[in-house]
Amino acid sequence: MKIARFVWQEEERYGLIEGNEVYLLEGDLFGAFERGQRVGTLAEIRLLAPCTPSKIVAVGRNYADHASEMESDVPSEPLIFLKPPSAVIGPGESIVYPPISQRVDYEAELAAIIGRRARNVSAEEALDFVLGYTCGNDVTARDLQSKDGQWTRSKSFDTFCPLGPWIVTDLKPNDLAIECRVNGAVKQKSSTRQMVFPVAELIRFITQVMTLEPGDVIMTGTPAGVGPLYPGDRVEVEIEGIGVLENVVVLHE
Amino acid sequence: MKIARFVWQEEERYGLIEGNEVYLLEGDLFGAFERGQRVGTLAEIRLLAPCTPSKIVAVGRNYADHASEMESDVPSEPLIFLKPPSAVIGPGESIVYPPISQRVDYEAELAAIIGRRARNVSAEEALDFVLGYTCGNDVTARDLQSKDGQWTRSKSFDTFCPLGPWIVTDLKPNDLAIECRVNGAVKQKSSTRQMVFPVAELIRFITQVMTLEPGDVIMTGTPAGVGPLYPGDRVEVEIEGIGVLENVVVLHE
Repeated sequence: MKIARFVWQEEERYGLIEGNEVYLLEGDLFGAFERGQRVGTLAEIRLLAPCTPSKIVAVGRNYADHASEMESDVPSEPLIFLKPPSAVIGPGESIVYPPISQRVDYEAELAAIIGRRARNVSAEEALDFVLGYTCGNDVTARDLQSKDGQWTRSKSFDTFCPLGPWIVTDLKPNDLAIECRVNGAVKQKSSTRQMVFPVAELIRFITQVMTLEPGDVIMTGTPAGVGPLYPGDRVEVEIEGIGVLENVVVLHE
Repeated sequence: MKIARFVWQEEERYGLIEGNEVYLLEGDLFGAFERGQRVGTLAEIRLLAPCTPSKIVAVGRNYADHASEMESDVPSEPLIFLKPPSAVIGPGESIVYPPISQRVDYEAELAAIIGRRARNVSAEEALDFVLGYTCGNDVTARDLQSKDGQWTRSKSFDTFCPLGPWIVTDLKPNDLAIECRVNGAVKQKSSTRQMVFPVAELIRFITQVMTLEPGDVIMTGTPAGVGPLYPGDRVEVEIEGIGVLENVVVLHE
């Protein structure tokens, strides 16, 4: 099942996508719902980020080849950080290059969307708490990341968390091709089976610390190949079984 | 004006406190509101955390004496990190000592509550975007903070962000006595005038990065004297002109 979010009759609504057709989702996305009326075709709607998280928990150095290119060791436990909800944008929205950074990087990531409240969850049951998966881009001001030591500022700018295009619910997360392209050129190309800590283990680890709420997002780390974006660039994150998240980069006004 | 939050007739409501009397707040806390009906006395209600932030932006090493006790330099710019909304508890609620830490510290802080959406705000106008102030405790698993390097895990456990007892709106934030007591013994004693970056500068800095929403919280850093809490401890944060935020520490179940 593919779940999207969009504006319909001036309201933000969830919907279901079947082929090229879009239908309203009637009911509770995290409870009981059914397919409602037809809205139109995909070409006729403007997609929003497919969820509205109360928090976004991200994971650093979760692919060995990326840890290596950052001259870091693979951590012995997941290394978590937070991105603010104010950073979220949807497919087609612009990543805004901030005036106080001279180096903004893409980071293609599989994003897991939580489906029900999760606290102290075991790895065995962890995936039962996931609603589905989407593509994410953990945009990072690399120069500020180095300068600050703490990663928060560099990863928290408005527009630095593109998510989308939709949530796919019936997907196994552990062996999906993941790719990042900038202006059509492949920059990152890996598989989620290269994760140091798979999604289930990340959820176990995170829910030892904090309660995850429905709609919360876990950004599961990026593979090797990170690099800079420039104003005017078109960046795509493609994940097997999900689709393509595309955004352009614009200079701040 | 003192603004509190509490449960009334099974609903979470904002209210106004006058002396010992509590009244409903009718209208929009961040827009137009007026005093509604009397609810009772302070002793008759159970206060909740006075706001429900979409994000909590905290600041490290913002008092020179604390930076020094942590063997750190005062940063040349504010050093920001995020705490998740799931960490918030109110006055009287318990701080839960997690099984995976052996060293949990208190950190008394002035918390600023944002009153209207703030983006790229100048220091001169910054305080106009603040609804008011409350007491905060940036509870930190010190052992995990050192181990991880990134501060997120150590500061994000459920219950690690006590806030309260209420928001005081007509308060100048730059010269307030701040004190932390554990079981009645004074552990931290300073003034907000000792901040390296005052509240207005923090807001300017943070809103260069991310849009702050009404109800968002800025934790403005802690003075020297941080130290451990143990199960059974009673910790109080007192700030001049606001009041006392009291919580007890309990061992995880």
